[in-house]
Amino acid sequence: MTAADIFANASASLNVDLNRIIENYETLAGQSKNANCAAVVKANAYGLGMDNVAPALYHNTNCTTFFVANIIEAIELRTLLKDAVIYVFNGLFEDHIDLFVEHDIRPILNDLAQVALWQEQLEPCAIHFDTGINRLGFSEHETEQFLNTRNDLNVSLILSHLSSSDEPENPANKHQLQKLQKISNTLPNIPASLCNSAGIFLGEEYHFDMLRPGIMLYGGNPRTLPLPGGIKNTFEIKGKILQIRELKTGMSVGYNGIWTAQKPSRIAHINVGYADGYLKLNEINGKVFLNGEIVSVIGKVSMDMIAIDITDRIFDKISLKDEIELIGSNITLEMASEVSTLGHYQLLTGIGHRLHKNYKLEAKA
Amino acid sequence: MTAADIFANASASLNVDLNRIIENYETLAGQSKNANCAAVVKANAYGLGMDNVAPALYHNTNCTTFFVANIIEAIELRTLLKDAVIYVFNGLFEDHIDLFVEHDIRPILNDLAQVALWQEQLEPCAIHFDTGINRLGFSEHETEQFLNTRNDLNVSLILSHLSSSDEPENPANKHQLQKLQKISNTLPNIPASLCNSAGIFLGEEYHFDMLRPGIMLYGGNPRTLPLPGGIKNTFEIKGKILQIRELKTGMSVGYNGIWTAQKPSRIAHINVGYADGYLKLNEINGKVFLNGEIVSVIGKVSMDMIAIDITDRIFDKISLKDEIELIGSNITLEMASEVSTLGHYQLLTGIGHRLHKNYKLEAKA
Repeated sequence: MTAADIFANASASLNVDLNRIIENYETLAGQSKNANCAAVVKANAYGLGMDNVAPALYHNTNCTTFFVANIIEAIELRTLLKDAVIYVFNGLFEDHIDLFVEHDIRPILNDLAQVALWQEQLEPCAIHFDTGINRLGFSEHETEQFLNTRNDLNVSLILSHLSSSDEPENPANKHQLQKLQKISNTLPNIPASLCNSAGIFLGEEYHFDMLRPGIMLYGGNPRTLPLPGGIKNTFEIKGKILQIRELKTGMSVGYNGIWTAQKPSRIAHINVGYADGYLKLNEINGKVFLNGEIVSVIGKVSMDMIAIDITDRIFDKISLKDEIELIGSNITLEMASEVSTLGHYQLLTGIGHRLHKNYKLEAKA
Repeated sequence: MTAADIFANASASLNVDLNRIIENYETLAGQSKNANCAAVVKANAYGLGMDNVAPALYHNTNCTTFFVANIIEAIELRTLLKDAVIYVFNGLFEDHIDLFVEHDIRPILNDLAQVALWQEQLEPCAIHFDTGINRLGFSEHETEQFLNTRNDLNVSLILSHLSSSDEPENPANKHQLQKLQKISNTLPNIPASLCNSAGIFLGEEYHFDMLRPGIMLYGGNPRTLPLPGGIKNTFEIKGKILQIRELKTGMSVGYNGIWTAQKPSRIAHINVGYADGYLKLNEINGKVFLNGEIVSVIGKVSMDMIAIDITDRIFDKISLKDEIELIGSNITLEMASEVSTLGHYQLLTGIGHRLHKNYKLEAKA
């Protein structure tokens, strides 16, 4: 018995199809004629596991550039991919300069103070110009100052970040585009980047020289519009039945007995709870998928388990070996998002660490 | 520079005061004259880190018995504590029998099928009698059958779990108590256990032979009543400032610009976001603590950061070195729970893996 087999029904499992992530990358990269396409793998590749996702992209696509949030994630990624280009969104702090240099990581400088910290380095860096989100990046004032002052920085990329790319009609997109175009015109020899996943679908003029999708690589939808064609679900979360119980009419299930059997009922307890990312927000309308049917979650979500109603005759043959889909091709991110009120981003990054991770990666035919 | 120093301002940090967990254990254990007190450390010690919490309790208190959810957690705990008694709530599966035996882990048998699987083992096990929560455990029918049949199981503990211990007035508590008393009377030589944290405060008659608190060890409150005296906060989550920005009137912050400066404003971006467990549920009323003041979270919560409003003159001296408390002695679990609508349990188990964990454990004077 392999470790994977042993663990298969001890924890619920997260099954990631790396080929689907590769296909999503190709779909996203294919949206632009001229721009390169990077991959955003921060927050442990949005919860799916940077250790498997980043190498799969690097070795099976043209992706050579990766973005992470902080230097810790960057060093972890460097141990996986010794030749990849790695940028750190959070910027540069004095204590970390040596780490950036030692591990060949590129800081994204977010203000003039960070520029000063990198001034003496010969290694490349990026500059983040804030064009309207007012989060990280050079302010308008600092941007002017920077553009009007000669410096010897080795800038390999300039970038900005869209505040409202999930709303294609929002005029903020155009404003941000125009601001970056103006900056880019002043720095014509430096590649520029603006587009996150949703930004890619705002049109070719937004693409500049580098796309940097995140959520859509993983099959998540940042917009209220349907997912663009070709973007596929990449993972599933599956649980196992811990116990099946027969209930008489009037018996209640779980904490505070918020669900009571209205007739003789059969319920199954599944080995996934809010400690695994299945938040209690799901306890009113949660659904799972079992034997070709959508099944209702009943009662309160516990830390380590949920209960489902399998009274229907169609479930007569259910056994402890059966797998329950909590998210996947049947209980889609859209459905999970609707009942939980959590966006796709939070559903992904909230995936619990206790889940046993399985990765599928098939060689190209 | 130590690794802890390097990482200190790259990730937000989770600081756990193990002495406080030890003190909470003593407070809980002290509620009963006769019962022993175990510790529930499932779900990575409710998010605080089983690898540090369990040894701290084992080596500094009389706690020798621990409860986890599944065999994977149990094996991990066995590597930390070679002589502790370890019980697994989720029960026994055929594939796992050898693992339980090899690692000296005690299954909690939840039905007669699981009894049959352990029948030939000489090693101890526990029996879970369901007395009304209708989650895991022997049904009433199975309980009768079990009590009326001779068996050679080496049962070291019988237990049941309260459905409504957070509601002291709920008659379900008394019903469950009476059912377990009856079972325990039939098995007078086997220690019995009923009380989770809230159950301990239902009164001495609920205590039987072993208490098994979880949430209150960690300072969380399972009840709407105030925390019992002596139960203390055990951890804090602290972030660092990534960047400070000056905004003109009318400038908006973050995704979709949902917060707009009504006057010239100063904001700080902090290195913690929903990927770290700071869910977007906080984006309306979220508060943090900085320099002795409660400060408002503004705009949308991002994956890797939040923004706070530090316009007030009192923050003129803020620097990048300052730490921001997101949860702790000032932003209590109660406050965080109120604004996020998440219970203490979910706030704890939702703590993100990217946080850098620091543990404090001082030797007794």
